[in-house]
Amino acid sequence: MTMGDSPQYEKRLTALGLVLPPAPKPVAAYLPAVRSGNLLFLSGMLPFVDGKLAYCGKVGKDLTAEQGQQGAKIALLNALSVVKTECGSLDQVVQIVRMAVYVASADQFFEQSSVANGASELLVQIFGERGRHARLALGASTLPLNSPLEIEMIIEVTP
Amino acid sequence: MTMGDSPQYEKRLTALGLVLPPAPKPVAAYLPAVRSGNLLFLSGMLPFVDGKLAYCGKVGKDLTAEQGQQGAKIALLNALSVVKTECGSLDQVVQIVRMAVYVASADQFFEQSSVANGASELLVQIFGERGRHARLALGASTLPLNSPLEIEMIIEVTP
Amino acid sequence: MTMGDSPQYEKRLTALGLVLPPAPKPVAAYLPAVRSGNLLFLSGMLPFVDGKLAYCGKVGKDLTAEQGQQGAKIALLNALSVVKTECGSLDQVVQIVRMAVYVASADQFFEQSSVANGASELLVQIFGERGRHARLALGASTLPLNSPLEIEMIIEVTP
Repeated sequence: MTMGDSPQYEKRLTALGLVLPPAPKPVAAYLPAVRSGNLLFLSGMLPFVDGKLAYCGKVGKDLTAEQGQQGAKIALLNALSVVKTECGSLDQVVQIVRMAVYVASADQFFEQSSVANGASELLVQIFGERGRHARLALGASTLPLNSPLEIEMIIEVTP
Repeated sequence: MTMGDSPQYEKRLTALGLVLPPAPKPVAAYLPAVRSGNLLFLSGMLPFVDGKLAYCGKVGKDLTAEQGQQGAKIALLNALSVVKTECGSLDQVVQIVRMAVYVASADQFFEQSSVANGASELLVQIFGERGRHARLALGASTLPLNSPLEIEMIIEVTP
Repeated sequence: MTMGDSPQYEKRLTALGLVLPPAPKPVAAYLPAVRSGNLLFLSGMLPFVDGKLAYCGKVGKDLTAEQGQQGAKIALLNALSVVKTECGSLDQVVQIVRMAVYVASADQFFEQSSVANGASELLVQIFGERGRHARLALGASTLPLNSPLEIEMIIEVTP
């Protein structure tokens, strides 16, 4: 790690004017994240704000792509809150490995990549080169609770 | 591992009144599971009973959420049968890492999480804390053979 | 590795009459592939030829399953081009671990497995036993750029 790459990711979050929400509570039969070796597998994350979905419905019909991007950022902040809870600090992140962005899409909506960019660009703003990830973006018919999008991540963390 | 956590997972299955089906046969060009390091990656599993789908169609239209849950349990038993075939015994399971549950969903069906709970709760009944996993649940437009759901898992096994 | 398993995968590609396309260029905020340990995670790959999609629309409506298979082969060649760029040579492949094939599907199209076979069979032709993978095939409502399919892979490579 070089000096310029000092991992003070939470300071960058603050400098961007962003605040991590409380991490989603563990539910009955599954967990927000499971670690195996150096990989942290996160559960699907929805765009919750204060326990309610920030948006509902299908992108391209009930939401614009821009609103979808905003929702992707919110879901990402929920995901990062889980990472902090699991690892103690975002500075434990070695590399964002994979992010999948599932978008509840209207029948003629093909800009899943644009929606996903909302989260991808924020990852790079926060983590720099360590935030550049392999990515999947695709259209889901419907998502839990009528959410417009769901984000799933695999993250390499310090041993 | 503590005494109380003794891994006799197949006895628990039996105590739950459950029987593993025969593992799905390997098909021509892909495998039921591939291991890399300590991670076992399973192929997508359908709710087969005696070589036929237990249910067909979309959840929320052709099936209720409860039938979807039942289907998720059946698909999970097929998955565990693959694990046993690959590893010799379910006792080789260290941790269920990730389970994705893809649900063929009617247009207004948003309870993919409820369907997935059928499999998630059974995992915890069998494996206890080692059965708690990261989870993804989402709606697919259609699934192979008109299956109402498909389950995909990543499992950490003993070295 | 036995003599008969000598990894000259690029020669096999050539013998099959296939040519790797140029690897998709890195885009702004994500990467074509990210490596963690011995695992290479690839981004979702579309059936690009010379920077344009070889097919558009939904399989079962705008394309036949056979055209979908052809598209899956093309997307796979794009994926392998990324692997070569990342690793220097396809001979660094130890095992194709997991391939997911997402198919933009007409409402009554249930042959996602048939579409996926286009890529699965080609993997075995090129890599032999090391090409046999865990597989997921499912229907997406829509895909980026109106692509009929998207392929995502996890590949074990040499240390």
